[in-house]
Amino acid sequence: MIIIGERINSSRKPIAQAIASNDADFIQNEAMAQAQAGSDYIDVNAGSFVGEEARHLKWLIEVVQDVTEHPLCVDSPDPQVIKSVLPAVKTTPMINSITLEPYRLEGILPLVLEYKSKVIALCQAETCMAQTTEEKVTMACQLVEKVTAAGVGLDDLYIDPLVYPISTNTESALSTLDAIEQIMKRFPGVHTTCGLTNISYGLPNRKLVNRTFLVAAIARGLDSAIIDPTDKKLYGSLKAALMVVGKDKFCMEYLTAFREGRLE
Amino acid sequence: MIIIGERINSSRKPIAQAIASNDADFIQNEAMAQAQAGSDYIDVNAGSFVGEEARHLKWLIEVVQDVTEHPLCVDSPDPQVIKSVLPAVKTTPMINSITLEPYRLEGILPLVLEYKSKVIALCQAETCMAQTTEEKVTMACQLVEKVTAAGVGLDDLYIDPLVYPISTNTESALSTLDAIEQIMKRFPGVHTTCGLTNISYGLPNRKLVNRTFLVAAIARGLDSAIIDPTDKKLYGSLKAALMVVGKDKFCMEYLTAFREGRLE
Repeated sequence: MIIIGERINSSRKPIAQAIASNDADFIQNEAMAQAQAGSDYIDVNAGSFVGEEARHLKWLIEVVQDVTEHPLCVDSPDPQVIKSVLPAVKTTPMINSITLEPYRLEGILPLVLEYKSKVIALCQAETCMAQTTEEKVTMACQLVEKVTAAGVGLDDLYIDPLVYPISTNTESALSTLDAIEQIMKRFPGVHTTCGLTNISYGLPNRKLVNRTFLVAAIARGLDSAIIDPTDKKLYGSLKAALMVVGKDKFCMEYLTAFREGRLE
Repeated sequence: MIIIGERINSSRKPIAQAIASNDADFIQNEAMAQAQAGSDYIDVNAGSFVGEEARHLKWLIEVVQDVTEHPLCVDSPDPQVIKSVLPAVKTTPMINSITLEPYRLEGILPLVLEYKSKVIALCQAETCMAQTTEEKVTMACQLVEKVTAAGVGLDDLYIDPLVYPISTNTESALSTLDAIEQIMKRFPGVHTTCGLTNISYGLPNRKLVNRTFLVAAIARGLDSAIIDPTDKKLYGSLKAALMVVGKDKFCMEYLTAFREGRLE
């Protein structure tokens, strides 16, 4: 299970403030907390700073790398921003993200090859985001085709089938779960990943909904997630889920996380 | 989702004591608590009273029926005990359980027909309990064949593929999950059910493991469970799971349970 720590994202107010005030300590604490809590990659995003995104993203990359060698997940919808910051990245990164939009594919895929990076690919085209299972799987197939045609291996591809609020469409989470299963069966070796928070929008006890969806998705084959690993209930659900689907030999990871007080 | 409340079981010490001392109030409180917490059936079991099981089970049935009209799940491995207590049951019951053992099939199936009851069928034969996915699915097929040949409809059959401690076999929970999916796909209309507690034996934070397995099983198709519905974290996971797999139209059941303080 590849965990991408989501906390350093400028859509979160404390992060935006820390970026605006050059508060490196705050960012570094966020990075260390996520590294210690079990992140495989630490996402860095400065997307809310329109026009200054590249400068701020480069700063985030530098301050995080000053305290940890953990790999980064470089997060921007803009291929030019990604291109301009990648030279600052010291460890093989993940790029977040491409879609089926040609300017993103054409802008990012050469960088994936050049930096031998991993890449997250959203089930999203120029005119629409995938809603039904069929749309998600169709777009996943197109993504696999485009990405492998460019010479990127399936093992470097993390397909995100997207989630939407269950509160506005009761079927939407199931569409994502079914898509995860179909994508993982159709393309052995590919990865699926997912952010969770959209799913619970408009519902009470959102964190319960988020972690329940994560467990359900793992039960259907999800092998990566974009989450806050410092949320001990979420992390506990994740570790227990990996154990019940047989991905934790001798329960060692679960037992270790329990002993270290990292799950609830 | 059919919920079978598991609390009134003589393997639990307070229940055994209440039975031994004829403490009807205690049993009735357990029954009411489970009825209010969302049980569809209330399980009654006096199996630890060897030689006196039938007498005590009949007493349990009578005291529970004095306070609630909720259907009962009459729980004994002994067909003679089941037969002797069924005349005392007022509402169409569930019988818990049959196996592939001939004396249980031959003893119970006529009662299922006579009382138009539901029946739980364990993936277990005379010489062994099903361990692998293949064994579970094979036994489920044999159970379906035997039960339908006797004239019982698939909708009255609740197949329990059995769970074992993950701590002794990391693959065992996955075998059950895979079996649930295969059984539900192969026999449309049949039900699957499951007790949870075995799965976490020998592990810390057992309740986390139990509720995580329940969510995973629901994600693979489980549509009934033998649980303690008064455990609010477990019940919350169950309600959230039903919602994420699209079985809660407009999130009404989740929202209602939240408003009534029945989930955490």
